[in-house]
Amino acid sequence: MSGGGADSRSVAEKLFAIADAFAGRESLGLTEIASRARLPLSTAHRLVREWVAWGGLVRGDDGRYRVGMRLWRLGVRQPTALRLRRIAMPYLEDLLEATGEHVHLAVRDGLGAIYLERLSGPGAVPVISDVGSRLPLHATGVGLVLLAHAPIEVFDEVLASGPRKYLPNTLTEERDLRRRLAEIRSFGISTSVEELTSGAFSVAAPVRDATGEVVAAVSIIAHVERVAEPQFALGVRMAARGISSALGYRPQGE
Amino acid sequence: MSGGGADSRSVAEKLFAIADAFAGRESLGLTEIASRARLPLSTAHRLVREWVAWGGLVRGDDGRYRVGMRLWRLGVRQPTALRLRRIAMPYLEDLLEATGEHVHLAVRDGLGAIYLERLSGPGAVPVISDVGSRLPLHATGVGLVLLAHAPIEVFDEVLASGPRKYLPNTLTEERDLRRRLAEIRSFGISTSVEELTSGAFSVAAPVRDATGEVVAAVSIIAHVERVAEPQFALGVRMAARGISSALGYRPQGE
Repeated sequence: MSGGGADSRSVAEKLFAIADAFAGRESLGLTEIASRARLPLSTAHRLVREWVAWGGLVRGDDGRYRVGMRLWRLGVRQPTALRLRRIAMPYLEDLLEATGEHVHLAVRDGLGAIYLERLSGPGAVPVISDVGSRLPLHATGVGLVLLAHAPIEVFDEVLASGPRKYLPNTLTEERDLRRRLAEIRSFGISTSVEELTSGAFSVAAPVRDATGEVVAAVSIIAHVERVAEPQFALGVRMAARGISSALGYRPQGE
Repeated sequence: MSGGGADSRSVAEKLFAIADAFAGRESLGLTEIASRARLPLSTAHRLVREWVAWGGLVRGDDGRYRVGMRLWRLGVRQPTALRLRRIAMPYLEDLLEATGEHVHLAVRDGLGAIYLERLSGPGAVPVISDVGSRLPLHATGVGLVLLAHAPIEVFDEVLASGPRKYLPNTLTEERDLRRRLAEIRSFGISTSVEELTSGAFSVAAPVRDATGEVVAAVSIIAHVERVAEPQFALGVRMAARGISSALGYRPQGE
């Protein structure tokens, strides 16, 4: 696209590029949208106007654009997110109450973990994840749990993608990752210490549906000083078990 | 559009019509999408494929289409919904615990009230509202509160739209509505009995931001047999006050 060559994208692709410009941004000016979507200003202006006419974007009094209520209403009906959040919420709330740290619910989306929900205690450790965030599988507690139970091709793709070393403890080598994933499958939970965020550790466990498939993961991210406290592993395990049970999962032998 | 005349809609409008087809529906087949979006099957097929390529729609193993994670991620970042939900959640949870019924948080969108959040006790009364629903202002507790504090033009538009009488108690006459809205402004809460749902009553109160403007409404919908219990009005009033305060609202004289 650089150098001003002809843009072979369809109108739909250009419209979606405008939507994608809002990833991680609360508001954007028109020139920012054009630049992030790699569109000439005139094209961006015309297509943004279409988004606004529909209500997918709104223009504020400050002249900047934001995601509109129509997109919120559409997105919030996404069946997986709606159902999982609704079923999981009471368990996540119990976990929050028991720990006062961050409680996460995430699902796998390609090579990323998408955070469906985050509840946080007032003194929780600063983290980069938030509702709607998408973080790499290899560097997060929920991501490693989801990866441990994903088809083997996903693991190959993670390796091929050149997993980034965020901190000295981030696992990026095939051997280290394989060992960790085997541990997760064997112990039923994943414990990570300062693999994505300094000063934080995480404990994560898989959520299964009625077919036994792992469809989500629950985690706590807490201050690293609390890593030895026993309630984190216990709480995450129980929350994951409760949500799985509410989804219709029945462990073999019960 | 009927009769097969030329479709003057832009590509963007057709794409958005496809998204709108999913309002109130969890999944749709291709022919349903085409019919609801008033598009020829071939056009619908081509545009749905663009939605799927982007991830805004996904095609399930059953061949039906659903809203995808990409739309969820985009919508969930809508700043108003994100901020209000986050700030309001603890108060809504307290209200749920105190009542065991439905707790709602809603904002005004044109002539409708959009439900940003709903928490429900296990034995709550059956209602039609849900997260993402948009219900008419004149027939819901939150809607009447939002209407009572909306610009006068909104009231005129509601009257002009021919407000529907859902139940014998639904207010649809100008005089009745004017009186109710004045009561709401004077008492600070709205109590409705069987105006939208048989067997249910609602109590609703306004949420104000730092400028004093009413930006949302909180309500409880409960079994009509409990209408005389005092904790509903008290709880809703306190929750609305707490959320307003968390948004920076300071009542005059305090």
